[in-house]
Formats: sequence, C-alpha cells, structure tokens
Amino acid sequence: MDEKLYNLTDIIDKDLKSNSLSKEEKSALCEQIKPLLPQGAIALAQINPHSGDIKGNALKAVKWIEWANNLNLSAIVFPEMYLIGYPIGDFIDRFPLIVEENIEWLQVLATKTKKTKVIIGFVEFNKSKKGKKYFNSIAVLSNGRIEKVIRKTLLPNYAEFNDYRHFEPAEVDSANRITDISNKKTGIIVCEDGWNDFDFFDKNLYAADPVEIVVKEQHPDYLINCSSSITRAKKEQLKHNMLSFAAKKHNLPIAYVNQVGSGECLSFEGASRVYDGEGNLLYRAKSYEEQFFIVDVFDKTGKVYPLPKGLEKTLTEQKAFSLDHEPDLERTYLTIVQSIRDYFQKTGFKRAVLGLSGGLDSTVSAVLLTDALGAENVFGLSMPSKITSSESRNDAKTLARNLGINFAEIPIKDIFDVTREKFDYTFSQIEENWNCRYKESFTNDNIQARSRAIILWGVANEFQACLPVATSDKSELYMGYATINGDMSGGFAPLADVSKTKLFALARWLNKNREQKNAIPEEIIAKRPGAELAINPKTGKPLLAEEALMPYEFLDEIIWRVENLQQTIGDMLDEEFLYEKHMKEQNQPVSKEQKSEWLQKFFRRMSTALYKWTIMPPSPIVDGRSINKSEYRQPIISSKINYNKTSYKDKLNELENSL
Amino acid sequence: MDEKLYNLTDIIDKDLKSNSLSKEEKSALCEQIKPLLPQGAIALAQINPHSGDIKGNALKAVKWIEWANNLNLSAIVFPEMYLIGYPIGDFIDRFPLIVEENIEWLQVLATKTKKTKVIIGFVEFNKSKKGKKYFNSIAVLSNGRIEKVIRKTLLPNYAEFNDYRHFEPAEVDSANRITDISNKKTGIIVCEDGWNDFDFFDKNLYAADPVEIVVKEQHPDYLINCSSSITRAKKEQLKHNMLSFAAKKHNLPIAYVNQVGSGECLSFEGASRVYDGEGNLLYRAKSYEEQFFIVDVFDKTGKVYPLPKGLEKTLTEQKAFSLDHEPDLERTYLTIVQSIRDYFQKTGFKRAVLGLSGGLDSTVSAVLLTDALGAENVFGLSMPSKITSSESRNDAKTLARNLGINFAEIPIKDIFDVTREKFDYTFSQIEENWNCRYKESFTNDNIQARSRAIILWGVANEFQACLPVATSDKSELYMGYATINGDMSGGFAPLADVSKTKLFALARWLNKNREQKNAIPEEIIAKRPGAELAINPKTGKPLLAEEALMPYEFLDEIIWRVENLQQTIGDMLDEEFLYEKHMKEQNQPVSKEQKSEWLQKFFRRMSTALYKWTIMPPSPIVDGRSINKSEYRQPIISSKINYNKTSYKDKLNELENSL
Repeated sequence: MDEKLYNLTDIIDKDLKSNSLSKEEKSALCEQIKPLLPQGAIALAQINPHSGDIKGNALKAVKWIEWANNLNLSAIVFPEMYLIGYPIGDFIDRFPLIVEENIEWLQVLATKTKKTKVIIGFVEFNKSKKGKKYFNSIAVLSNGRIEKVIRKTLLPNYAEFNDYRHFEPAEVDSANRITDISNKKTGIIVCEDGWNDFDFFDKNLYAADPVEIVVKEQHPDYLINCSSSITRAKKEQLKHNMLSFAAKKHNLPIAYVNQVGSGECLSFEGASRVYDGEGNLLYRAKSYEEQFFIVDVFDKTGKVYPLPKGLEKTLTEQKAFSLDHEPDLERTYLTIVQSIRDYFQKTGFKRAVLGLSGGLDSTVSAVLLTDALGAENVFGLSMPSKITSSESRNDAKTLARNLGINFAEIPIKDIFDVTREKFDYTFSQIEENWNCRYKESFTNDNIQARSRAIILWGVANEFQACLPVATSDKSELYMGYATINGDMSGGFAPLADVSKTKLFALARWLNKNREQKNAIPEEIIAKRPGAELAINPKTGKPLLAEEALMPYEFLDEIIWRVENLQQTIGDMLDEEFLYEKHMKEQNQPVSKEQKSEWLQKFFRRMSTALYKWTIMPPSPIVDGRSINKSEYRQPIISSKINYNKTSYKDKLNELENSL
Repeated sequence: MDEKLYNLTDIIDKDLKSNSLSKEEKSALCEQIKPLLPQGAIALAQINPHSGDIKGNALKAVKWIEWANNLNLSAIVFPEMYLIGYPIGDFIDRFPLIVEENIEWLQVLATKTKKTKVIIGFVEFNKSKKGKKYFNSIAVLSNGRIEKVIRKTLLPNYAEFNDYRHFEPAEVDSANRITDISNKKTGIIVCEDGWNDFDFFDKNLYAADPVEIVVKEQHPDYLINCSSSITRAKKEQLKHNMLSFAAKKHNLPIAYVNQVGSGECLSFEGASRVYDGEGNLLYRAKSYEEQFFIVDVFDKTGKVYPLPKGLEKTLTEQKAFSLDHEPDLERTYLTIVQSIRDYFQKTGFKRAVLGLSGGLDSTVSAVLLTDALGAENVFGLSMPSKITSSESRNDAKTLARNLGINFAEIPIKDIFDVTREKFDYTFSQIEENWNCRYKESFTNDNIQARSRAIILWGVANEFQACLPVATSDKSELYMGYATINGDMSGGFAPLADVSKTKLFALARWLNKNREQKNAIPEEIIAKRPGAELAINPKTGKPLLAEEALMPYEFLDEIIWRVENLQQTIGDMLDEEFLYEKHMKEQNQPVSKEQKSEWLQKFFRRMSTALYKWTIMPPSPIVDGRSINKSEYRQPIISSKINYNKTSYKDKLNELENSL
C-alpha cells in the first residue's frame, strides 16, 4: 500500500489517543484516506484494553469502529478477550455479573455497526448442562446486530495461561468459523487455536489442529487470528516461524491481530501482522504502540514496521547460554517501560519513589521509571547508613541529577541506632526463655533494608498517587538475596525478571541508546555489586554480592539452564559453563569441587527463597521463562526436593537401611 | 469388625509415627491382630506426604507396606499423588527429574511388595507425541513388580486445583481399571473421576462419568477411590452425599481413601471411609490423624470414628448467612492447628513469634499457635504505643500467662518517635518538589504497625527456626484493613480465611472446649475490635474498626453472599441482611442509603485491597470459598470493575454520549 496511507493513519492514532480532531477534520481525513484504500482493506485494531473495565473498553472500541465505518473498511478486527481485557484471573468465576455486562456492552456495540464488520473478543456463558461456565469467544458484528459467535477450542493452561480454569473447549464447528468479508471467505481463528500445527511442533499440546480442520473443510480465502499473545525472550522467533509456516503450508494469507499494552505481569507487544500464502511477512504493525493498522491481505505491497532493534537477530534459535544480551535489550527496555506505565495508569498511580543506593538495580530502575512516568514523577531517595560509601552516595546524586528526577538524601543512622537498641533489649528479654540465638545473623543488614522500606512506604502514605518501587533483580531473587519488607518490598518490581548479567548490558545499552546519553555514571556500571549492608571481615570492605553468592556469570547460567533446559545438578556438572571457559582462558580454571559447591548452593538457597517469591510485588514477565508468580508457582514447603539424581541402586540401599 | 482390632491398630499407628516397637513386638502384635481379620481385609493408608520429598514419602510408605505384608492383608491403598505429595504447584514442569525420581522410587517400592497389593498415587510421563507432559496415575504393585497403572481422566482446574496445567486427561480404559483383590473385581477410581455423576449434580463439569463407564462395562464387585480432597466449610456434606449417592446408585460398596495433613494452604482431613451398596456409611477413619485403617467392604460391622463435633449438623445445606458458626468450629480449629503444625514442620521451623495487642486476632492466633507448636515455642510480644490502652496491655499479659507462652513487653514509643522525626524531615524535603501531600493520611497508624513488624522479623532473624506470624483476619483482608509490612506481614497467616464474626465464636469455643478452660480473658472477647493505631476525633478514644469500616455482622454477610451466591450490589440491596433484621428488631432500622453506602464501600475497598491479597503470606483455606491466592486470583489492575449492574438503556446512552 501507499506509504502516504500510514502517515495519514498516524493522525487517526493520535485522535484515538487524545480526541485531537474535530468532526470536520475527521471527515476531511477520511476523504484523503479513502482513495488510497484497496477495496478489501480491513483494519487491525492493535489496542490496549483494561482488565475488568468493560465500559471503558467498549467506549474505547466504539471510537475505533467509527473510524472504520467512516472509511468504509470491510472489517475491523479486535484482539481476543478484548471486552473484558486480559488478564482476568478468576474474577469471572466469582462475579458472573462481569460476563453479563460484557454481553450487554457487546450488544450495545453491535448497534453502532454498519456494513463494516466488527470482529471482537468477549466472554460468553456456556448454557449447556455440561462443562465449564464460559466460552472464550469472538463475535462478528455487522449491520446493527451480532452476526455470529466463534468459540475457542484450544485452551492454554500453562505458564501465564489459565484459560481452562473457566472456559469450556468448544468443538471445531468449521462452517461457523467462516464469515464473508468483501466477498472473501474468511476463516476466524482464536489465538491458541492457531498454535497446534502437527508438522511445525515435535510434540503437540492438543489432539486437534483447528486451522487444518477449517482449511480442509471450508476452503477459506484467508485466515484471521485474533490473539492476545505476550512478548517474552525468544517468543518473537516462535510467533514468526509458526505463522509463516502455517501460511505457507496451507497456502493462505494469515492476518494476525495482537493486543498491545501491559496487564500487570503480562506485556503484549502488538506487532500485528499479515503473511501471504507463501509465508512471507507482508505487513507488520508497530511494536508497543496502539495502532489502527490498515491492511489488505491480497495486496503484495504491505507495510512492515521494524521490530525492536536487534530482535530480528533472535530469529535463529539460541542453544547455549550467552552473555551477548544485545539483541534482546531494546525489547526488554520497551517491555518494562510499557509495564510500568500501564501498571501505574491502570491502578491509578502517577508517582514513584525509590531508594537510590548507587548500585546497579536501583539505578536501572530509576532510569526505566523516568522513561515510563516522566522525571518529575520520580523521587529518588539516597538513604545512607554508616556502611554506605561516599562513592555510592555521590553516584546516586549524580544519577538523579543526570536524569532530572527529584532527589533527597535521608540518612538512616538514627533509625538504625534506635532500632538496634530496641533489638538489644528485645533479644535479651527473649534470650531469657529461648536459648537458641544465632551466633551470626543478618539482623543488622536487615534493619537497614527495612528502615529504608519504612521511609519509602511512608512517602507513599503521605503523598498522592505515589507507589514505592522494589528493585530486586532476577538473579538475586533466585538466591533469596533480598530482604523481606526491605528492598524486595514495593508496589511494583520492574527488574524481577532481569538477570544480573543482562542488567549490566542493559545499563550500557541505556547509556548508548537513550536520547540523553550516559545518564548512568560509569562508576555505577564498573563497580562490583554489593548490598552495602555488612562488612566482609576478610577484606574489611563492604561485602560484595559475588562473595556472598557466586560469580554472577555462573549464577545466571544456572538459571538459564534450569529455565530453558530443565537441567539437574548432574547434567550441569557434565557440561562446561561459559564462566568455566572464560576462567580457563585466564589460567584460573574452576575446580570440580568449586563448581559442585556453587550448584549445591544454588538449589539450597533457591529452596529457601520460595517463600520470598510468593510475597513479591507484581513484576513484568520479560524472559523466556521466569519465576513470576503469574507463571510459575512452587510450594514453599517443597524445600526438600532433591535436585541431584540418585541411582536406582542407591535408592534400593536407602530403602533397605530404613527398615 | 471387632472393636479390639482398632485398639490394636492404634499401636501400629504409634509405631509408624515413632518407631516405638521392636521386631519382636511387631511380630507379637501381628499375631494378635490376624485372628481378628476377615479374609478380604484391606488397609486404607490415611497418610501425610510431604510435597516434593519423594525419598521421604517412599521411606515412609514402605513402613506401612511392611505392616500390611506382615498382616497378610489383601491390599493397602494410598492416596492420589502420594509419592510426590500435594500440592505440587508447577515444579514438575520445570524439574522433570522429580518425576523420574518418583518413578524410580515406585520401582524400588515394588520390590518390597508380596501378595498384599499396594495401590499408590504417583506421576507418570506421557510418552505420546500429543498432549501434556504427564499423567496423574495410580500404580498397583504386587509380588515385587508394577502390575498395572491407572490414569486419571477428569482433571480439576478450579479453585485450589490446577491438575490441567501439567496432566493429560486419560481415556477411560475401563478394563484396565480393574484389579483382582482377594478374588473380588475391584474398580479403581482416581479422586475427581468419582465426582461427575450426572444424576447427582444439576450441572456437570465434564462430559464423561468414569464411575458409570467402569461399572457398566466391567461389573466390579466394589470400587476404591484414591483421593486427595481438602476440607472446607460445607465440603464434608458434599463428600458424604456424593459418595453415598454413588454407592447406592450403582449398588456397590465404595472405599474412599483420603490424604491427611496440610500442605501449605491445603488441609486434608483424612476421614477415609467405606459406604456399602445401599449408600450407608460403614466405616470412617479418624479425622486429622494419620491412620492405618483396616476395613472389609463386605463386612457389615464397620467402625465409624466421629467427625469433628458439630460437623454432622452441617450435612443439611445452609442456604442463608448465619451467625451460628458452632457446627463448624471444631473443624475450623483442627484445620488451622494442623496447618500451622505441618507448615512449620515441613519448612523446618519450630518457633513462632507474634505481637499480642490484646485484640481478638492476635489472641486467637496465639491460642492456635500454642496448640500447634507447644507453649514453649511461642513468644508473644506486647508492643504498646502511646495509643495502646492499659487494658489492652493487661489483656495481652493475662492471655500469655494463661497460655503459658513466653512473653515480653517492648514499648515502641522511641522507634515511633525517631521514625516520625525522620518522616517530618523526609516529607518536608519531598514537599519542596511534590505539591501533593494528603491532608489526612494513615502514616502514623502505619509507622506503629510497621515498627512492630520490624521487631518481629528481627526476632526471626536472630533466633533459630523462628517464624513471625501475621494475624490478619478474612473480614479485614477483604477491606484492605491491614498494614503492608505491618500486621499482615509474617511467615504464615493462620486466620486469613476466618471472618470476624466466626472469630468471636471461635474464641468462645476455645474457652469452652480446650482442656484449659477460659484461657482467653473475657475482656478481649467482650470489647469491640479496634487497631489502636489512631484516635477517633469524634469520640476522643481509639478508633474502632466498625467505625472505620461497617458493622462486622453486615460485612461478613456481604462476604458470604459474594463467595457463596455470587451476588451483585443490586441483588444485595433487594434482600434483607441478618443485620438489618436484628436492627429492625431493636427499632433501629438500617436505612436504604446506609445499606447502599456500605455496599459501595465494600467493593471500593475490596478493589484497592487486591494488591494486599497478592503479598499475603501463606494461610490455610478454611471456608467454602476464600481469597487465598492458591484458590482465587484477581488482577490488581482490575480495580475498575463495576459491581453494580447497569441497564441496557443506560449503556446505550453512555455510548451515544461518548461519541
């Protein structure tokens, strides 16, 4: 299509966001656009719904529908579940009213439809005496009424998905999945229904492939897939390969519309697209932006907006752990910034307060918050204790100045001292009855972290629409290296799914790629991380994180192997880590004992970190797999799992010895 | 069977718990028991597994198996999923090693089997190219080998269940579900497979009834149902009715074995049982205790242990909210005490520390902790602020003395003062940039609650195996009436699923029914609850909770209606609440406006409490429905849900006005 078209529809996008156009300007814009449209043009509504705000979603959709009507488009296609808005959790189970309301709003929306068909996701009651309460459905609206309803068959229930908790899987009624759009037989597919190709996957989750059934039985001219599919590392590769493969295999164009925006832990990147019947990418919408995206699946001159920079490189599969995070950094940045922005906006918050320690986690958090909320809405507090170095204090100050965020220094020595005094008294009282005091404890470390959190939550109590932010990163959460009611406490945790080695790379990327270069002082990136909560008796200096844990490069590879390869301790002992390779190159090989010790330590610490995972604030899913509680839950009491395979013979012996 | 038998098997139970018998004593006991056994006697292994501790579970099972072997029983039946242990969360997805290990342990266990069949739950790999990774299976072991494996068909995925995340539903291969036990054709049913009778339920979750298929196709002599089915209010009624109905309908005895013990949020009450072919309860095991329970499903003289007192009364369905909590109090008590005991034991903790405010929540918590962990392992801290009344301080002290728990008084005035001073400084710094300070805030209230939590967590840091306990109750959690990092923070929250009116009843019940009578000072039960964090300017006295919220009797009925009837604001306005009836009787009728205001307030406060629910510590499910995050999840961002139905016409108008 004509490049001009997209410059003009950018104005529609602006109007949809801010009602910027008068009635006359709208008409004039339509008259400019219409001549550029082929006859069968449809709009993909790449739109950001708000979970549970059905009225808001409906009133938003009708504006998009009006544009499509006024442009005489053949159809406008919304994402799956649009009216209720992902994620839904379990609220439709406890409040059937929500479903009643979404149906009435659908009926009301239908009254505004004309010739332009509206294809839109909603939730439907299952009126049968058997099965779950609801269907995950797509309605086709036109000429003032609901033309038909298509029900989803394959209900994902893994990782971040919980469809099967509330929805009944529908039969693939292929004839019903066809609607006529501009004299083309259009097959409608609902998200996961398009993800079960038997030739594409080695192993399939479901027994049926609805795409194949619809194609074979109905011979459609093309397919539309209404999706709500999140972004995560490596998933763009899968989406592209899968959609391209299916289009080619069935020799049919596929238009895929995806939600954009973030819902709590889930981030949708948009990037809606069209593949032609040879599997070529013909159109692709913007990423991380709402877009009224006009396409014609039979027009060979589509518009392809770029993916986040570097992401194309990830279209070949990564088989090994790598420190080269570069190809995923822009996507990571955009995902987190969108998550912060939408979480604050959708919960009614506006301002963020965070502790600036001069360390990497709080630094990167501050940059991301600045970009998501605006510098004026971010307050950084440096809260030095007696262990905090003057370098850290200066680094925090410099960072705040560079970013232009609000800043104050609040020393916590007096709070620490009075708490410590109180503890001395308390512990002496308790010791009278309990003879089980630890010789060494983290009590002092934790007083500092908790005093800081008290201040941050106090600010949130006292100032309007202000949320404290937790800065823990993924590597440290795996190790439980975070203080309960301390640094891991907050209203949102932007970095909880970013590992430490990736954070370093992200910091450098931010310095290079943000409009304002080098906002992060080089000192912060160069120094080795440490919580500055305790002194290492061996060095006399603040204890470094890697001294308390293990080298981050090694730690991050364990996490990568656990999440991506499901490896055990034995598997990992048998294979060479990147860190081992690097140390060998430096003639400082890692001994087998050292490696084994680190591996044991990882699983031991992980087993006692499980509780902390359950009380983490919401955080965006970024990685291919995560410990985000929307995705992965492990019982706290499962701390006795043995992550090291034992032999059959050992088991037999243990059994004999136990009797 | 002979009453003597159960006195003798009590000795087996004791040995299984503590290895109390020598080899000779075991032999002697067997010789005493054998003459009392009918030929077809089997053992129901009512046992408490530990999630993920496969070795531990296997080594425990083998002791039970040995007893069954030595008594020459026909079979011993373990619960569903025994070897891995409910709950499993998602750990088998990320660590397939766990499943490999459970299969090897199963093979090892098989080597110890003889003529006595062992029927036991485990997890199996799905080796097919289609479907989910695993099956939820039952193995039949005998004569040193695995005789057969039966796979579960109906996979619950609602409320606390998440079976469908990892398990493939199996075909009902009825012939495979039969095993011969003592020349009787025995049909084996796995938990939910027995819960889909089309005549019993008005609406069924699944399309197939495996029980009917097995009975019709195979004509078994009786059925065994291997279950792991939790206790909750009203569920005993459902279990009894359903099992009795199925036995009668198919004219077949049903033996039902249930897990006992608690796994984090899930509590299994045991109460394994046998119904005869007329639907009569023939045997029932103890509740909340492990038991090696010998039954003969064809012997009409079964042994029926009592349910928790009062529970039989709940066998008729409750259709309206009631303040008569009595029939559910012993079950509630036993459930929570078991939960605390098992949570501490399974996570390796031993001691609890909690704040004793002199209020109802901390008081009942202290009693339950005492009964679960022993008085010597509980430390109560009274932490008065300047708002704390001398009555509260005295009540806390008296309670501790009555219970015999450890006690100290730690005033928090100095921590409060230094924090308040720090806040004044901090807020003045922030006000320079942010002109959005609240006129009124909860800052002072929260300093107190958070200072107390700092002390409790400090004790946990300093003393071995010690966990701080959060005391929030269900009514207050619904209203978000709990402080983040304050009273709602802890390692476990025993009362999170107990509403306030029920708590009052439980307090009185404890005073009457515990061995030590009246441990709770009457003053604590008599006074109206208040957090003692702020002064009510109208009364000059500490603000009462009901002044800040609404009458608890009214609040608890809203919760009951939301959870049990899924009612909306409109529904509730149309019906009379018990509180309204009571007030009318006292000639103080509740106005329509007042009622409407409370209802609006409930949903408004609930909508902003959603975040707090996500960071709550683990807590036992007690009620029929709950907001426990193992059961119910609602996105924090769904705060714009409208809980009040609007008319179609209003919607049409809103749409028109929006354009």
